[in-house]
Amino acid sequence: MSSPFFNNPSDQVVNVDFAHRVRFTRRAFDVTNPTLRDVFDSEEETGGPRPRILVIVDQGLIQVNNNLQQQITDYFTHCSNHLPEIVRFRALPGGEIIKNDLSFLEGLLADLNQHGIDRRSYVLAIGGGALLDTAGFAAAVTHRGVRLVRMPTTTLAQCDSGVGVKNGVNMFGKKNFIGSFAVPHAVINDLALLDSLSDRDWRCGLAEAVKVALLKDADLYADIRKNIPSLNQRQANAADPIWQRSAELHLQHICLPVDEGGGGDPFEMQTARPLDFGHWAAHQLEALSNYELRHGEAVAIGLALDVTYSQHAGLLEAETAREIIQTLNGLGFTLSHPRLSHADLLDGLDAFREHLGGRLTVTLLRGIADPIDLHEIDRALMQRCVDVLLTSAEALPSP
Amino acid sequence: MSSPFFNNPSDQVVNVDFAHRVRFTRRAFDVTNPTLRDVFDSEEETGGPRPRILVIVDQGLIQVNNNLQQQITDYFTHCSNHLPEIVRFRALPGGEIIKNDLSFLEGLLADLNQHGIDRRSYVLAIGGGALLDTAGFAAAVTHRGVRLVRMPTTTLAQCDSGVGVKNGVNMFGKKNFIGSFAVPHAVINDLALLDSLSDRDWRCGLAEAVKVALLKDADLYADIRKNIPSLNQRQANAADPIWQRSAELHLQHICLPVDEGGGGDPFEMQTARPLDFGHWAAHQLEALSNYELRHGEAVAIGLALDVTYSQHAGLLEAETAREIIQTLNGLGFTLSHPRLSHADLLDGLDAFREHLGGRLTVTLLRGIADPIDLHEIDRALMQRCVDVLLTSAEALPSP
Repeated sequence: MSSPFFNNPSDQVVNVDFAHRVRFTRRAFDVTNPTLRDVFDSEEETGGPRPRILVIVDQGLIQVNNNLQQQITDYFTHCSNHLPEIVRFRALPGGEIIKNDLSFLEGLLADLNQHGIDRRSYVLAIGGGALLDTAGFAAAVTHRGVRLVRMPTTTLAQCDSGVGVKNGVNMFGKKNFIGSFAVPHAVINDLALLDSLSDRDWRCGLAEAVKVALLKDADLYADIRKNIPSLNQRQANAADPIWQRSAELHLQHICLPVDEGGGGDPFEMQTARPLDFGHWAAHQLEALSNYELRHGEAVAIGLALDVTYSQHAGLLEAETAREIIQTLNGLGFTLSHPRLSHADLLDGLDAFREHLGGRLTVTLLRGIADPIDLHEIDRALMQRCVDVLLTSAEALPSP
Repeated sequence: MSSPFFNNPSDQVVNVDFAHRVRFTRRAFDVTNPTLRDVFDSEEETGGPRPRILVIVDQGLIQVNNNLQQQITDYFTHCSNHLPEIVRFRALPGGEIIKNDLSFLEGLLADLNQHGIDRRSYVLAIGGGALLDTAGFAAAVTHRGVRLVRMPTTTLAQCDSGVGVKNGVNMFGKKNFIGSFAVPHAVINDLALLDSLSDRDWRCGLAEAVKVALLKDADLYADIRKNIPSLNQRQANAADPIWQRSAELHLQHICLPVDEGGGGDPFEMQTARPLDFGHWAAHQLEALSNYELRHGEAVAIGLALDVTYSQHAGLLEAETAREIIQTLNGLGFTLSHPRLSHADLLDGLDAFREHLGGRLTVTLLRGIADPIDLHEIDRALMQRCVDVLLTSAEALPSP
């Protein structure tokens, strides 16, 4: 060796391809519907014992459809040689409680252990984003990853988080403090599941659809604006294409390289950003409201705030900003909230920076489908924009 | 739609490239040694605040080198504009206790939270495999993954697990019940750290070196056999190439595609197997001995058992089997243990199957560098092989 130290780099690139199966359907548990069945290996393919599946369901869903467990059981029984064997059916609460109280995660890990779920077994999680996040984290760490089939039941999860590759639970009062990037084995978006949502929950997905349209797709934004009356009546022929297009845009951002319009960084290891326009304030407002605000409601306020900031920072024309605020209002979102006045609101910028790491990066708008990332936020100006939302809220058309 | 269900598959492939930096050196904390410094982004590159680093060290290492903390501090201070800022120096026990008692994991997560470790920050973990596994899991789940620099301090970790992409802790009495696949930001193998190991610990890595040689590299096997006397004297010129070659073979198995001699499946999602020859019995023996047996010692026994089985199943010539047993003995391994007679030993096959999922797959040998995967094990025959080890142990040359 010429040097007193030697360095023989044995550097390698570890290249991993994850299959990300995303399917849209209606009535997934109709025994004649092949969509769900098609994502499982058949028994012959695995060459081993019949795989097991542990089913986790949002208990709120069972309350509105108390026949659900039977339907699922019938579906898995109907074509038993193609499908895994259900070894446990577990009902859990949806909403942020399941991410905040770690005993739910611990209980799931105990279930997975007790029922011998291995790396060839499956977890089927049926619920909203919070339940999918918790079940997804349990599945991702058990035996370093058992196969997860997600069935998102909310508009928000079907058009955004449910097709993503993240999971996580909250610790130390921080949202998603622990979690992982893990590509689910499959995502089944059953649009019929959305019919039983309350108007309040149903509307939430529209906030993420507006967000992704503002960042990526002027046509989708125009479609949403054109269909405001039909969307307020929850007409499936207006809404279904919006849920699907929104899911596709989120998927493309995750999966495609930059030169094909994606983020090129599915596990967010570089500087590529997730689609988190409006989200720094949204996360903080959710926490400050003790999760009384739904994520979609908080995102709508966060979008309104960052659109207002974009306008007052001279990036975005006032007319475009006004139109976006009108759109969110027209869809029934209330764009103000008492917690906007909380002294800790702007700390959301710091929490946001810490979670993503490195410099603060906030996405703002220069126009429809014309985002810009800024690394400096004028906090005094942001505070004035908060005040605009707080004071103009009464003047804004209410839903 | 022509079908009452629609299925518009939006399937994607999520392709992720992880850089896996593996460097060999001596005296990594010598301020003139650039090896460690070179794996960090410089402050200018990150464009953000100076990154932080939390240092986790095996407390046994501090006992044999009570100047270590000062050396590390000096190294990071010496070129401060290139290196992250040390925000916490944490000593933790090595050995299986750190994986069995989840309060260590929880304490690490609390540290990472308290000291604001974000996705642009680092964790530097200095220790043996168990400490690296626990620190690695904490780093992998915090904010869905903060950057981990591993500095393995045992022969076992330097030539095997430390260059791998796994982490994990034990739960429900099951080894690595929770964990993840996570490519470390970098691995620094400082061969000088091995000098302070006890003979017992130093020897352990040789079991994994023999294992990988038997599976992949007849030349390495011949090298080990030729150097038995020098290895027993711990001569660096004999040992260093063996540690490096073993690490390279493990790395290649993880990172390279099948047609280039690798496993082609770094995250073990398909049927490709990790290099776990001899490991079903080793894991079980470690647990049955309450971890009184070191992992390397248990692997040597596991190898002897599966070599004996290979011979008695008619796969491997008796002469080759005898030579392997002699090699392990010559290196100072005791190839029997009272716990071999435990009624639960063969349950290790079931635990092994469950952890990897699907069919049972046990790797056996047809010759040197000629492995074969079997899916059926004759338990009566395996029991007779156990009895051979139990009864012939006294007749085997002792170290």
